[in-house]
Amino acid sequence: VRIDLNADVGESSGLDEAVMQAITSANVAAGVHAGNASELRRTIRLARDRGVAVGAHPGFADAAGFGRRDVHLAAADLEDLVLYQVAAVAGVAAAEGVRLRHVKPHGAMYNMAAKDAEMAAAIARAIHACDPSLIVYGLPRSELLDAARAMGLRTAAEGFADRGYQRDGTLVPRDREGALVVDARAVAERAVRIVKDHVVAAVDGFDVPLHVDTICIHGDTPGAGQLAVAVRSALEAAGITVAPVL
Amino acid sequence: VRIDLNADVGESSGLDEAVMQAITSANVAAGVHAGNASELRRTIRLARDRGVAVGAHPGFADAAGFGRRDVHLAAADLEDLVLYQVAAVAGVAAAEGVRLRHVKPHGAMYNMAAKDAEMAAAIARAIHACDPSLIVYGLPRSELLDAARAMGLRTAAEGFADRGYQRDGTLVPRDREGALVVDARAVAERAVRIVKDHVVAAVDGFDVPLHVDTICIHGDTPGAGQLAVAVRSALEAAGITVAPVL
Amino acid sequence: VRIDLNADVGESSGLDEAVMQAITSANVAAGVHAGNASELRRTIRLARDRGVAVGAHPGFADAAGFGRRDVHLAAADLEDLVLYQVAAVAGVAAAEGVRLRHVKPHGAMYNMAAKDAEMAAAIARAIHACDPSLIVYGLPRSELLDAARAMGLRTAAEGFADRGYQRDGTLVPRDREGALVVDARAVAERAVRIVKDHVVAAVDGFDVPLHVDTICIHGDTPGAGQLAVAVRSALEAAGITVAPVL
Amino acid sequence: VRIDLNADVGESSGLDEAVMQAITSANVAAGVHAGNASELRRTIRLARDRGVAVGAHPGFADAAGFGRRDVHLAAADLEDLVLYQVAAVAGVAAAEGVRLRHVKPHGAMYNMAAKDAEMAAAIARAIHACDPSLIVYGLPRSELLDAARAMGLRTAAEGFADRGYQRDGTLVPRDREGALVVDARAVAERAVRIVKDHVVAAVDGFDVPLHVDTICIHGDTPGAGQLAVAVRSALEAAGITVAPVL
Repeated sequence: VRIDLNADVGESSGLDEAVMQAITSANVAAGVHAGNASELRRTIRLARDRGVAVGAHPGFADAAGFGRRDVHLAAADLEDLVLYQVAAVAGVAAAEGVRLRHVKPHGAMYNMAAKDAEMAAAIARAIHACDPSLIVYGLPRSELLDAARAMGLRTAAEGFADRGYQRDGTLVPRDREGALVVDARAVAERAVRIVKDHVVAAVDGFDVPLHVDTICIHGDTPGAGQLAVAVRSALEAAGITVAPVL
Repeated sequence: VRIDLNADVGESSGLDEAVMQAITSANVAAGVHAGNASELRRTIRLARDRGVAVGAHPGFADAAGFGRRDVHLAAADLEDLVLYQVAAVAGVAAAEGVRLRHVKPHGAMYNMAAKDAEMAAAIARAIHACDPSLIVYGLPRSELLDAARAMGLRTAAEGFADRGYQRDGTLVPRDREGALVVDARAVAERAVRIVKDHVVAAVDGFDVPLHVDTICIHGDTPGAGQLAVAVRSALEAAGITVAPVL
Repeated sequence: VRIDLNADVGESSGLDEAVMQAITSANVAAGVHAGNASELRRTIRLARDRGVAVGAHPGFADAAGFGRRDVHLAAADLEDLVLYQVAAVAGVAAAEGVRLRHVKPHGAMYNMAAKDAEMAAAIARAIHACDPSLIVYGLPRSELLDAARAMGLRTAAEGFADRGYQRDGTLVPRDREGALVVDARAVAERAVRIVKDHVVAAVDGFDVPLHVDTICIHGDTPGAGQLAVAVRSALEAAGITVAPVL
Repeated sequence: VRIDLNADVGESSGLDEAVMQAITSANVAAGVHAGNASELRRTIRLARDRGVAVGAHPGFADAAGFGRRDVHLAAADLEDLVLYQVAAVAGVAAAEGVRLRHVKPHGAMYNMAAKDAEMAAAIARAIHACDPSLIVYGLPRSELLDAARAMGLRTAAEGFADRGYQRDGTLVPRDREGALVVDARAVAERAVRIVKDHVVAAVDGFDVPLHVDTICIHGDTPGAGQLAVAVRSALEAAGITVAPVL
């Protein structure tokens, strides 16, 4: 039994060093929705020195909205925007002796591409054009993962141990009660159940099936570092191998 | 006994409507470190319709770092940057029939101006040039409040019920354990103690004196709405008047 | 006989001081398509000290395209974007003791609003909400000026002495031969004819009628300062009063 | 006898297609001081289809100033900023089957790096880290070319046929008379003299020695396309081979 732990980094949270102690894959902001050239490079070096796999984390060109606001682009423009960001992160990583391993879209782009097949295909084309060996991260059963597989790209389905789930397997929206699980022990227990039993308890108490290759640790909330360490320790104590996606 | 509850809004958190149910003063992002023209105007209307006082929330021109990274500007450039943002928010508010009431700098600008007298004076000059009747929000005993008072501006000292304090009265840094108090009941109790007894329990258990005119509710964490309502209810149950700064 | 000479300034051309010696109205970039808070304020001071009327020059939020690329916004978003920029320039001007006099949209926004009635109305609403005494600059017979007049705003029709005209009264596109008149003497003579005779020679040699209240001097081409002085001198030598729009 | 003709493209001038008919090297804006991901990719395709060599044109992260304002960065930050931009352009070019050939810094970065050895070294390090086979464009006898050569990078010294020169071999500043040569025939004659005789006439009439590998055609002024064609025709008529730098 094996799982990858990933976190979004390079987003000026001030918590990257702490989070990087526990994760196995780092999604590095490409300097468009967050970060900048120097933070990008520094974060890549940090991941390299910690043995953490490096991925690109492209987002909409809406830094003032932290990439969380829906942006409606023509498919070709979305493709270009993702290609640009993946190319930049891959090139900076190469200058640091690191081969880019994966791509995980950010925020509104991630959510829109989960449901919109045209957007999903545009993103998959961009990633494929950059490097066909890249792994695409996304929600299980999302349009994004379908589009990636259709192009021959490898994929990783992602779950969230610190977010509430609804009975239909979707996340509780951020403005509803139960959106976040804050107790570190509870988060760790959920992570273990997700990996070992392939289920997560929904907000109404029912168990929901969840098959994932990687678990996301939110890196921008205070205490993210301790939370990541607690999750990793609990997983390892349960005999699970914590390592990058194969 | 009276206290103001304030929150940073217009920053694309998706939680503004929920938070605005409980606060009495809204610090509206000026479209530079976060937000944009439409979000700014919509947020001002929302505050107006809820009877919430409107303030400007200027930040560094570093949206990709969410205004959290230190930026070292010449004092005159900082003054111009703050004047621009306060002018924009004040003008949009005026078009909506609202008079701007206060200014609270954001993130790194807030923290730097607490300790740097030259920056504090530049910010105070900008606010005074825009409207000498504005109230300046800042940390108690900060350079910013000193500079504002020296120019004849009104001030409001700010406390945090959901942040950990150190024994010297400063906040626990965001990457340390105890940085955030997440239990809603604990936050509400801390708020009541701050207002009634002028003390807060530090992370080591000792009580620290804290005299404030306004308490900040963080508006960008999941559950912020419920937290704000819980804090306001507890304050009112304790016989405290929750209302804007006089 | 009377004419206003206007130029776009505050756009980092390095030529503002030279141009400001000859013009009577300055369209100051609002820090969105070009400029920033400090350049905005410095340019307003320069105009004030030279006795040049100050206007706002709002543009699309596309600095990397210098506001020259078409951006398709919902009408309400365009209105908010213009309101934000006019409010910012008006507020900074007020802090320098200057009352804003006019508004001229920039680049693609100017061209789109000349033909698109919905965009024109959105811009006019924004200007009116900010200050109903502002004068709106635009192309003669444009949708923008029609919309402004329909709201009771004053308007100024604008001509170009250094741009080629086609026989239908429209400008020669920038990528065609004859787009620019570069000889200072020729530009000055065209300006005098426009003001005195209300005609301009089109690229095919025919005279085209042109009734304008203000002539634009391009401020971002090398030699703009000398050109502006040459135009003003020729106008004054022809007995024309060069002064802001009434 | 051989010369390269280069132009800055991908900067939203609307003139790229026209200019691309005559040049042999295109400096493509990296989406930071100008352009964006889609314009970048489209411009690279246009160059590829025309047989024009593709280079990166990195600039300061100051789109609102069009990269023309001095920005003072720590050397490491400048290095990171250049690396990021060169990596992005190289990666997008690779996705289009094009190998990046050269790098020419933009505007204020170009001018500052001509005189500042520390900045020059930082830029050279970034280019070298990205790809040691890249050719660096800069002013003859500049710190930038010295730093590039010191690292083993190839260099190309650049001249300007449409800019006025002073007797000391430097360019006439943009706000002075004689800054620009606008007559196409005069520009073409100057180009031929620069290549054949290695001299250019300064504004005071004296001939100044000028040894260059490439001549810059300004791509953002109306009529740039015709000017480029005129220069190329004159060079070829004089028996000069117009081709990319070897």
